[in-house]
Amino acid sequence: MSQLALLGGPKACSFDRVETWEPDYEREIALCSQIIRERAFSNTGHPIALEFEQRFRELVSGTEFVLPQNNGTSTLIAGYFAVGVGPGDEVICPTYTWICSFAPAMVLGAKPVFCDLDPETLCLDPADLERWITPRTRAICVPHLFGSVCDLDPIMEVARAHGIAVVEDCSHSHGARYDGKPIGSIGDVGCFSMQGASPSGKPVGAGEGGVFCTNNRHYYERVLAFGHFNRYNISTELTEPPLTELTTATWGMIKFRATNLSLAIGLVALDSLEYRNRRIKENYDALLGLIADVECLRPVKSYPKAENAGFYGNLRLIFHPEAAGGLSPERFAAAVAAEGASLGGRNYDGYHLTSPFSTGMAFYDDGRGVISPQEGYVPQGPGSLPKAEKVIPNILALPTMIDPPDGYIEGMATAIRKVAHHYRDLL
Amino acid sequence: MSQLALLGGPKACSFDRVETWEPDYEREIALCSQIIRERAFSNTGHPIALEFEQRFRELVSGTEFVLPQNNGTSTLIAGYFAVGVGPGDEVICPTYTWICSFAPAMVLGAKPVFCDLDPETLCLDPADLERWITPRTRAICVPHLFGSVCDLDPIMEVARAHGIAVVEDCSHSHGARYDGKPIGSIGDVGCFSMQGASPSGKPVGAGEGGVFCTNNRHYYERVLAFGHFNRYNISTELTEPPLTELTTATWGMIKFRATNLSLAIGLVALDSLEYRNRRIKENYDALLGLIADVECLRPVKSYPKAENAGFYGNLRLIFHPEAAGGLSPERFAAAVAAEGASLGGRNYDGYHLTSPFSTGMAFYDDGRGVISPQEGYVPQGPGSLPKAEKVIPNILALPTMIDPPDGYIEGMATAIRKVAHHYRDLL
Repeated sequence: MSQLALLGGPKACSFDRVETWEPDYEREIALCSQIIRERAFSNTGHPIALEFEQRFRELVSGTEFVLPQNNGTSTLIAGYFAVGVGPGDEVICPTYTWICSFAPAMVLGAKPVFCDLDPETLCLDPADLERWITPRTRAICVPHLFGSVCDLDPIMEVARAHGIAVVEDCSHSHGARYDGKPIGSIGDVGCFSMQGASPSGKPVGAGEGGVFCTNNRHYYERVLAFGHFNRYNISTELTEPPLTELTTATWGMIKFRATNLSLAIGLVALDSLEYRNRRIKENYDALLGLIADVECLRPVKSYPKAENAGFYGNLRLIFHPEAAGGLSPERFAAAVAAEGASLGGRNYDGYHLTSPFSTGMAFYDDGRGVISPQEGYVPQGPGSLPKAEKVIPNILALPTMIDPPDGYIEGMATAIRKVAHHYRDLL
Repeated sequence: MSQLALLGGPKACSFDRVETWEPDYEREIALCSQIIRERAFSNTGHPIALEFEQRFRELVSGTEFVLPQNNGTSTLIAGYFAVGVGPGDEVICPTYTWICSFAPAMVLGAKPVFCDLDPETLCLDPADLERWITPRTRAICVPHLFGSVCDLDPIMEVARAHGIAVVEDCSHSHGARYDGKPIGSIGDVGCFSMQGASPSGKPVGAGEGGVFCTNNRHYYERVLAFGHFNRYNISTELTEPPLTELTTATWGMIKFRATNLSLAIGLVALDSLEYRNRRIKENYDALLGLIADVECLRPVKSYPKAENAGFYGNLRLIFHPEAAGGLSPERFAAAVAAEGASLGGRNYDGYHLTSPFSTGMAFYDDGRGVISPQEGYVPQGPGSLPKAEKVIPNILALPTMIDPPDGYIEGMATAIRKVAHHYRDLL
């Protein structure tokens, strides 16, 4: 009989809980109670909102305009709109990311075009960008996925050479840096999600929320006119003609305003961000040190200039079936789970191979829509992004670890090493 | 010397506060604290969200699909998207309403077309609809403004005759009815805002929020696919091909999800809606009775089948300068304010005469956009909506009155009657 728990052996570890870190419930409740008593749910310019904005501006230091939003998806809509994406344009995005990195561009009438991954980092492959640029390309989306900072220097170089804007999707990686500068401050615009709440939500979680960042006043004013009607300072903030002609209702097309209840939760999250980011990094390093000799399971690499952080969705691992006799990553993860530990899965498949992008679909009646076959949409199809297609099925992930219980890291390592050692029993 | 306070005379009334009704702060705080402790900010299908949905479904009884949204503007986007509004379409809306009644259609690539008002009710004039219908008209927006229910029978008749959808904007009028049926349940879709909070926010206020309502499963599924990715029951809710092919990420284009903190506030508001609606109506009736002989100030009329309610933004009054020697409504209101009472203004000008619609403006680079002159947009211009243009400058409003302090209604009436009696002193 095998020693593996999946095959009837004893478990390697057992934990009642996997995380002991707790949010500051009392401060969250106090701030929300204040907003409730003041009936200040929806006022812009409330002291809590202003404090949040100032604190977030410090997080993306070097960024002048910081605009809270009601969710990360709306923040990506804002980001694409800011840089001028509109009907008939194309936006390039890596195929492996959350759909809301690129699909918001479709609201504006633009079509997503998928590019390949660097299979060592799971980030956008800068070397694969030029292949997808056309005269209609107006923006490149750069998702710093699961805490991994993309290699911004070569990406910015390609973008600048072609006059294309860079939209950083920083939703998983609050606090991460590249070349010493905070992510979100390097591309033309930076977009952050604040969905969920600590410990398992976005690194700065506000329940629902997002933050749009830019140093470009024109982009900032475009987002104000598009989605921030009746913002407290809107009359003085719109300085560029023809926006100066508008009333405080601006264009009234879409509403991006964050609720003050959400900003209160986000403000409290900012207090603990540095601690959480440091602890997660320390714990990952400790665990990775203990499994450094496990050949079939390797962490994603990071670029020399990258300081990865945030790690929403957790640090990714790449499973190497060839180092485990052809074992599947699913079977490996199931065996680790049986040992009492836990590995996450890949979360997303490549979107170029996922419906509706793999087939096309009309969003509007009469076959209208940017990925409608009736309007000429042709899916990229299998084989178009070979590196992504090869690596995606092998992606696994570690759990979140801020303050794990005593022995948790060692238990995780023991479970993983045990399964790796006995992989032949699973074949 | 005149007796009018504006001209140095004694004030007619004086109040420390104008409203004694208070929300149930403690229940709001208890529900929000529960959500905070459960970290349940963003989960769909939470018991508080489900209770809210059920209670709202009772409010719009007869409506099968009730979908909470993150704000009223997004709910209008959802409403237009549901009925198939898309690029190149036109949407008809009365010129006098909040911009978010119609501007959300522009996000989808549709152009607003403004129609005239019934000057007795300030509602959409059903007799003016056909003039604006073209082959591109896909929807008519029916805003039940400030609590006043539009005359839905003739509107639905015109819409049905031309195969055009009706989008009810119920944002000001939760609980109002037409022909015995709740508004929001009569048109093809009903859209409610829940912005702000009682006593001065929307009749069902959730801080930020909205509710999309329909009886049409096709419309409901379109909104789910458009903006409700990862909703708790999305896999079973999408039953119509090709939506059945989608993952739970659906189209991922836009995020309409309400926060549970907002739905908690909305749930508490639903508890008091009937009381507040009844009291406001009683108080308006009492005040209007006391000023019934003031010829220069007449309340809006209501249609025979309408049961007006909600009254967000408050009951409108129409000032008749010809009954006051040509006095301006602004001067009349200033004199009432000086007496210690208060009348509101018109809030909006007609949008066909307001920037950006009065001039056109390109939202996207290169002159692109549905109201861009470069794309052929021609403003309707002055004189195109004569009834609206004549009545809008004369609109005034009463204050909110749920539980006004003792003597407030009598004081308001005294102030108004005094100014009306002495109007010649103001000429």
